[in-house]
Formats: sequence, C-alpha cells, structure tokens
Amino acid sequence: MRSLAGRLDLCSVNTATLGYQLPIEQTIDAVAAAGFGAIAPWRRELEGNSIEQVTRRIRDAGLKVSGYCRSTDLTAATQQRFLANIEDNRRAVDQAAALGAACFVLVAGGLPEGSKDLAGARQQLHDGVALLLEHARAQGVSLALEPLHPMYAADRACLNTLEQALDLCAALDPTPSGSLGVAVDVYHVWWDPRLEAQIARAGRERRLLAFHVCDWLVPTRDMLLDRGMMGDGCVDLPRIRSSMEAAGYAGEVEVEIFSQDNWWKQAVSDTLAVCAQRLQEVC
Amino acid sequence: MRSLAGRLDLCSVNTATLGYQLPIEQTIDAVAAAGFGAIAPWRRELEGNSIEQVTRRIRDAGLKVSGYCRSTDLTAATQQRFLANIEDNRRAVDQAAALGAACFVLVAGGLPEGSKDLAGARQQLHDGVALLLEHARAQGVSLALEPLHPMYAADRACLNTLEQALDLCAALDPTPSGSLGVAVDVYHVWWDPRLEAQIARAGRERRLLAFHVCDWLVPTRDMLLDRGMMGDGCVDLPRIRSSMEAAGYAGEVEVEIFSQDNWWKQAVSDTLAVCAQRLQEVC
Repeated sequence: MRSLAGRLDLCSVNTATLGYQLPIEQTIDAVAAAGFGAIAPWRRELEGNSIEQVTRRIRDAGLKVSGYCRSTDLTAATQQRFLANIEDNRRAVDQAAALGAACFVLVAGGLPEGSKDLAGARQQLHDGVALLLEHARAQGVSLALEPLHPMYAADRACLNTLEQALDLCAALDPTPSGSLGVAVDVYHVWWDPRLEAQIARAGRERRLLAFHVCDWLVPTRDMLLDRGMMGDGCVDLPRIRSSMEAAGYAGEVEVEIFSQDNWWKQAVSDTLAVCAQRLQEVC
Repeated sequence: MRSLAGRLDLCSVNTATLGYQLPIEQTIDAVAAAGFGAIAPWRRELEGNSIEQVTRRIRDAGLKVSGYCRSTDLTAATQQRFLANIEDNRRAVDQAAALGAACFVLVAGGLPEGSKDLAGARQQLHDGVALLLEHARAQGVSLALEPLHPMYAADRACLNTLEQALDLCAALDPTPSGSLGVAVDVYHVWWDPRLEAQIARAGRERRLLAFHVCDWLVPTRDMLLDRGMMGDGCVDLPRIRSSMEAAGYAGEVEVEIFSQDNWWKQAVSDTLAVCAQRLQEVC
C-alpha cells in the first residue's frame, strides 16, 4: 500500500466536506493551498459559473479532478420524468468532460415516490445507465456507479452493494472499456461481508474509478449528515485502502464528509488541515 | 401464499411492538383477546417473574411462542467477557426451552468498544454460536440467527445479511439439524439484492425459523426506534412473504415494531387492532 505521509498529491478533497461555505474559486484555492493534489467539485457549485473558468482555475491551482459529483436520481415515477432525468445527467456528463474529471459519480436514486417496486427501480437504473453510458463514451467520460449504504435504499439509491454495482457494470459493459466502473466509499460499504472479495473482483474487471474516505461514528446521530472524520469512527481504513490498492487502484484517496453539526461548522482551513493530517496518519 | 384474512392464528405479536406498557401477564391476555395465535416475549419481561407461571399463562391463553427475544451481544472486548456473554445466553436458552419457544432469537452484537476489527468480531460470533449451539441442542432449542440491517454493524450486530447468516449456519451445522437457522425480519433485509435467492436457499437448507414484519418509513427519523406499521412504508411485504412461503416457511408471521414516538404511545388494544387489520390486508 502506498504511504500517504508527505503525499497529499495522492489525496483529494470532495468539496462537500467543506459544507459549501465558500464560492468554488476560493474553495479551489484553499484546497490547493493545503497541499492536496486533487479536488472533487459538486454540480451545485458550478451553477452560475462558467465551466471554462472553473476548469482553468482548477488547472492553474495545480489540481486534478478526482471526480465530479454527482448525478441526480435516475429512477422516476414516470417514463417522461425518467427521460428528463437522463437528459439532465447528459448535461452533467458534458460538464465532467469539460472539467477533465477522472469520473462522473452516479447515484442511482431510490424508489419513486409511493412505489414499493425495488426490482422495478433497479431495472430502471439499468436502463438509465445504459442510456447515459452511450453519451459518456462519446464524451470520453467514465461513469462511476456509487453503491450507497442500504439505509438509503428507499430514498436515495437502489444500488446498495459493490457486488450489485459490479454486476450492473458487467451487464452493460461486458468488455471493460474504461467508461463504466465504480466509486467505492468506505461509508457505504465498510460493513459488507463480501467487501474484500468484491474489491478484488472490481480490480480484475478494471472497474475501480474512485475511492472515498470518511468514518462511521458510533453513535451516528443523523442518517445522512453525521459522517465522521477519518480516525474518529470504527472503520478500518488502512485495511480497505490496502484492498483497493492490492486490486490495482492507483487514483486519489478522496475525503468526502457530510457533517452538518461538526465539520461543516469549522473554518475551511481548519477542516482541510485535519483532513490532511488524518489522511497521512490513519488512512 | 397463505391468505391471512381471518387467520390471525397464523400471526404473532412480538411484545416489543407494544412498548412494554403492561406487565407480561396482561400483555399475554391482550394478545390472545385480539385473536392472535402466538406471542414472542422479551427476556426483560420475564425478570422477576416465574418462567413456569408465564409459560402456563401463555398456554392457558391458547398462544404459541413464535420466538423468544433475544440474546445479548455475543461479541466482547475480552475473552472473559465473551465467555460471560455465552454463559448468560445459555440461561436464556434454558428459558426458551421452558417457554416452548419455536426459536431463540440470536442478535450477534457489534464491534466491541473501541474495536475496528469487524472480521474479528465475526470470528467471535462464529465461535460464540458454536458454543451456544451445543447447549441449545441439549435443551432442544432452535437458535435463530437474525441478520440486522447494515446500519447496525458497528453497535448492534456484525451479522448483516441473510447470506452471511446462512453461511454461518452451514459452517456450524452442515447437516441441518433443526437447531440452527435464521430469523428473517423485513426491516433488516428488504433492501438486499440477493434477498430472494437467499430466502430460497434458506428454504432448501431448512433454516427458516422466524419471519418478522413491520415497514420501512420514508423518511426514517431514528435509526433504531422509528419502524413503521405494515403498510405505512415502502416494503413490498406480500412479495417477501411469498418468497418465504414458496421456500417452505410455515410458521407465524410475527409483527415486531420499535416505534418510540408513535405506536409505543398508543393504547395496547389499539395497536393490536391495527396490527391485526394490516396483517390481514397488506401483508
């Protein structure tokens, strides 16, 4: 496994970690000033901005783009809405291309409102990724399917295990083209008894596009916005990173922390300093 | 699939559903008066009571015991504590035998405090179930491993999927003896892409000992105590029950709802009436 000590160039900051306190230009500069090698911006931060200017700012700051966050829901209650979702995400793929992002992170969407048809939502996800994949290939963008924790199956993502994500990749991109793979986020997958086997499989099938770190706090006080800083929870981060790298992952280690009541209230520079320290010491 | 209309004799009430508002004797009488065929009491309700008297009261009320809840954590930070946990649970197995319970529900326990060693906790679970199984066999009690939702992996159970539970059964009881199986609770497993295949497997391997129903609310406001009444959430209950029964499950359908801010505040008779209605209409 790579040592991260003195190697913040291998590390990335997902801007959600900073609670969107600053405009994107200042966020870019702060991440670069803290020594990180990459950034993962969110679509909401580009609204009202010129994608060319943001891209140039990132380049000028010497940062790579480890990922672009993220798709809106693909699943929908009606076919019309489903097709609108795909179209919306095609535009996001275009932005990912402009940014030169290593991947576009794809979050499935949960059950459409009022639906109990989980198998149907998963079929819709399959169909949606197929449609989006054509466009992504044309744009030279890699789609990273991110399985979300099963506690989000109803309202955020019907894609809930790494195995399920890899099965979907295999169905839609049987000869791995590089255009379809997975984002492995420790928060979502750390509990999975099949995790190590599926990471190894993902490596063999050349699907490892992104690796996100944070920690699982005990207790967790909010199902969405109480993620922990690396080292503050119960996830064996070196073990998972070691599996990723043994499977061939050579991309950035990206910090992504949703923490409404703690880190989002800290000064951006302080949070970045703690991220940098923990990445080097406990990941 | 069996129709439950007019067949509350096929249905059971897990007493946790009623928020422990009444002493066990009154709970037994209320469940019987509402027409249910079975009950699943909790160990805490027997404290300070004679097990023989409670057993007689249940028999006299015409109820079966669909399960006895539940083991305390098997996992522990020290070997001494681990052995104490096993011993404590042997006493609970004795109570399950006295009650004539269809099974003793076994909840694994999560990571010992301060530990990040999930694989180690799972090994400890394996060892603990092996020890407990000897005693259960001698007492004629069936142990039902209950995989809990992955959101409880840290603090409640390192057993998180039906597949993982069945693998453990296969390792410890390779020729199914009836002494080791699983409790399938929709709340914990409804999201699992492998659910139907693993229920079918559980049937083939003769492991289906209990079936618990409630619902997953959207949004869920508390990770432990905000379960929904059947029909109020997004779980396709008939689909899962149909899988269970196609796999050979012929036991009771047991309602188990932890609902601090809703059902636990209702009168016991009202909650029982709604349970009865929903079991017959939406399960």
